[in-house]
Amino acid sequence: MPMVTIQVTREGTKPDNESVTAEEKARLIKGVSHLLLDVLNKPLESTFVVIEEVSTENWGWGGLPVDAYRQQRGRR
Amino acid sequence: MPMVTIQVTREGTKPDNESVTAEEKARLIKGVSHLLLDVLNKPLESTFVVIEEVSTENWGWGGLPVDAYRQQRGRR
Amino acid sequence: MPMVTIQVTREGTKPDNESVTAEEKARLIKGVSHLLLDVLNKPLESTFVVIEEVSTENWGWGGLPVDAYRQQRGRR
Amino acid sequence: MPMVTIQVTREGTKPDNESVTAEEKARLIKGVSHLLLDVLNKPLESTFVVIEEVSTENWGWGGLPVDAYRQQRGRR
Amino acid sequence: MPMVTIQVTREGTKPDNESVTAEEKARLIKGVSHLLLDVLNKPLESTFVVIEEVSTENWGWGGLPVDAYRQQRGRR
Amino acid sequence: MPMVTIQVTREGTKPDNESVTAEEKARLIKGVSHLLLDVLNKPLESTFVVIEEVSTENWGWGGLPVDAYRQQRGRR
Repeated sequence: MPMVTIQVTREGTKPDNESVTAEEKARLIKGVSHLLLDVLNKPLESTFVVIEEVSTENWGWGGLPVDAYRQQRGRR
Repeated sequence: MPMVTIQVTREGTKPDNESVTAEEKARLIKGVSHLLLDVLNKPLESTFVVIEEVSTENWGWGGLPVDAYRQQRGRR
Repeated sequence: MPMVTIQVTREGTKPDNESVTAEEKARLIKGVSHLLLDVLNKPLESTFVVIEEVSTENWGWGGLPVDAYRQQRGRR
Repeated sequence: MPMVTIQVTREGTKPDNESVTAEEKARLIKGVSHLLLDVLNKPLESTFVVIEEVSTENWGWGGLPVDAYRQQRGRR
Repeated sequence: MPMVTIQVTREGTKPDNESVTAEEKARLIKGVSHLLLDVLNKPLESTFVVIEEVSTENWGWGGLPVDAYRQQRGRR
Repeated sequence: MPMVTIQVTREGTKPDNESVTAEEKARLIKGVSHLLLDVLNKPLESTFVVIEEVSTENWGWGGLPVDAYRQQRGRR
């Protein structure tokens, strides 16, 4: 019965995407569920996964909203 | 001072509803607050409840997004 | 597939108890699972509940650790 | 590497605002990151902050949705 | 800057273990961090992972504490 | 009614301390509660703070348990 929460900023991996795509979400869900099966022997059907997308305005890093921090540091 | 977080998929209980209704949310809040009063003697005014509605695309079960898993298993 | 998290301070409801008892935990789990069945029609077997007990030293209210706040306000 | 989650209701501090403003979010991020630097000596760049805005309909207090509770108690 | 929270019951995968081992935790951390690199192109150094081990007494499933539920259902 | 969760590794700021001290926790609680009062005008008595201390073994950064990552990078 594991519960996995994945929090990421709401933004795309490619210029045309404004958020994580459904296909990317499905890969995250599949990957982490199989990881728990492989490492802890948890059956797939007993694992829940929740993906929380957070506006970049609402995510802080380095004491700044993440967009400002990236601009300052030039790193993702 | 309990804090209760209820995470559910964003979908309705009836065909016409696209999400949990305000009336259903109020019943959840009332029910869980009274449960903490009854079991642990916590005053109603010291309990916070947060309901988080999660898009079905963002919820994984059985290694799949929940809609795909339900289709595969025929269960809710 | 709801997920419920109940955070409470680690303390007993009676003078002899230092924490929430197993019986009280079972009542919380039963109560909130049935609430989700009644209000949102979620089957019992699709609901996870996690009870997190937090040391009173680690819980803040009113700008103070909760024991200090209770002393100041004379309320639970 | 601290992780701070701030959950607040989605509403403005002034009549014209419907939510927390970007400037207020930046102040929260800055303030809490510096607090962790001051108290625990955590470098700014190792602290993540996530601000979660919750609809008032989804926030419970006193056994009621928060708007109903405020109306009943006349307090914020 | 993803943040991943993995909640599991505190128990071992083998009869001699009473909890998740340090080696298993390291595999979970490595696996999920690389998953975020592969799927969303997130650099390893920007991903935090927190593993929360929860006493079986504090985990509910099927309206029961998980040990009671497993006994009833004969499944993990 | 804000709810603030502060997750940090369980370790001291000085060689003699094995964890965050009660005095440091009180400063974190006071600081963040006053921040919410200053920025969002939230009364002190309506803010809850929970400090979660996480074993370094259970915290991942850079794809590794945090102690291994620090050793590799020579940074906190």
